[in-house]
Amino acid sequence: MRETADRLMSREELEAALREIGATRYHHLHPFQTLLQDGRLNRAQVQAWALNRYYYQANIPVKDAYILARLGGVELRREWRQRILDHDGSDTERGGIEKWIALTDGVGLDRAFVESGHGILAGTRFAVDAYVHFVRERSLLEAIASSLTELFSPNVIGVRTRGMLAHYTFISKETLAYFDKRPVQAKRDSDFALDYCLEHATTAKEQAAVMDALRFKCQVLWAQLDALYYAYVEPGFIPPDAWRPGEAEAGGETR
Amino acid sequence: MRETADRLMSREELEAALREIGATRYHHLHPFQTLLQDGRLNRAQVQAWALNRYYYQANIPVKDAYILARLGGVELRREWRQRILDHDGSDTERGGIEKWIALTDGVGLDRAFVESGHGILAGTRFAVDAYVHFVRERSLLEAIASSLTELFSPNVIGVRTRGMLAHYTFISKETLAYFDKRPVQAKRDSDFALDYCLEHATTAKEQAAVMDALRFKCQVLWAQLDALYYAYVEPGFIPPDAWRPGEAEAGGETR
Repeated sequence: MRETADRLMSREELEAALREIGATRYHHLHPFQTLLQDGRLNRAQVQAWALNRYYYQANIPVKDAYILARLGGVELRREWRQRILDHDGSDTERGGIEKWIALTDGVGLDRAFVESGHGILAGTRFAVDAYVHFVRERSLLEAIASSLTELFSPNVIGVRTRGMLAHYTFISKETLAYFDKRPVQAKRDSDFALDYCLEHATTAKEQAAVMDALRFKCQVLWAQLDALYYAYVEPGFIPPDAWRPGEAEAGGETR
Repeated sequence: MRETADRLMSREELEAALREIGATRYHHLHPFQTLLQDGRLNRAQVQAWALNRYYYQANIPVKDAYILARLGGVELRREWRQRILDHDGSDTERGGIEKWIALTDGVGLDRAFVESGHGILAGTRFAVDAYVHFVRERSLLEAIASSLTELFSPNVIGVRTRGMLAHYTFISKETLAYFDKRPVQAKRDSDFALDYCLEHATTAKEQAAVMDALRFKCQVLWAQLDALYYAYVEPGFIPPDAWRPGEAEAGGETR
């Protein structure tokens, strides 16, 4: 999967190569995503998605804090910290994590259970933890490049939000409030990260590393949907200790 | 999944609790394992298993080296280093990794491709890397406890080896040589690790941590088979960049 790092690409060529990775590997192509936005999942399957993706959301500020710690200067940190503010919110503005909890509330999951992380799929945990470890252990350039999946999210969010509102009676606009601001935030964040990568990947090897980092991040998103599909759609083998439909309903048992 | 750590168990109770975790969560219960040993996989599916599990095998000495670095004394290191010798071999004796390569050779996979790690499932990589990170980051007691799945491997190896030899024309005794010594080694290693854990888990909290470490490791093994099942059995959605049947046949293209 690693490109032959033999030729330095122009800025435009590298950007085109990164967009091509998104076009062929971003999780908008995953069958679970299609089922979700076409209204072909049942409530329990949407609950499973919301529950598992909470763990991803909850770790976004963690990975961003590791990047923040490594940026090495005031200007860059001022730029990057906005991501953490967006996710963690403030006294006056709900953050992305709180809005995601509104989503899990909206689909009827017990809040304490969701926040505990119990019942998520091991595949979710391993993929998300791999992302956090990646930004700690790889070069700063690779850590920043791994955020470039946001280049591809604005369109997907629109399609998904419209599809979910149209098809699911248990989903309201308020339930999906998380996604309202994400397209604008994602565009701002990914414009910055793309510019950083195009600027700082000055050797063929670094360009290849940037591309690999984006492929890696596509795998992080893809593997989460693989695990959901396998456990809750087809063949439907739920691993030991993972959430089962009917468990942790809001107001019910939280085990 | 975390036990309520409210009561100190006796040595016998803790051992029984650990064996119960294996009885209900070890990957001998996974449907992929059943298909494999009952001869119900085709050659490409067995190749996928051998290819992906190579990545696990190749990382065993890595995780053992991290444990070795943390043991803090000559006696313990003398004991634990044997695991690394077993996997890495010597000038006169083939190690486990070399024997696993004999297995991937035996099922017709290109050796350089297998060793490159290209084409393995993201689910495999994330699960195995999670294991390596676990032994680095958790307490030494938890790191050692995570090896306790070997308590349950000797029986499984016998069933699997007999089943594979009986059912697959492309599998020979030599191909499965990896498994010849594993039951004896696994018993020796897990006897030691079990004794260490029973001795050093002296609070209810530590006992709960030991049990959680074993559950975690069961998930590491289970999630690898989930990923294989999903990609190569049912529904059979192979993720982007993962190996596809027919690729990297020995003597063929290695892409």
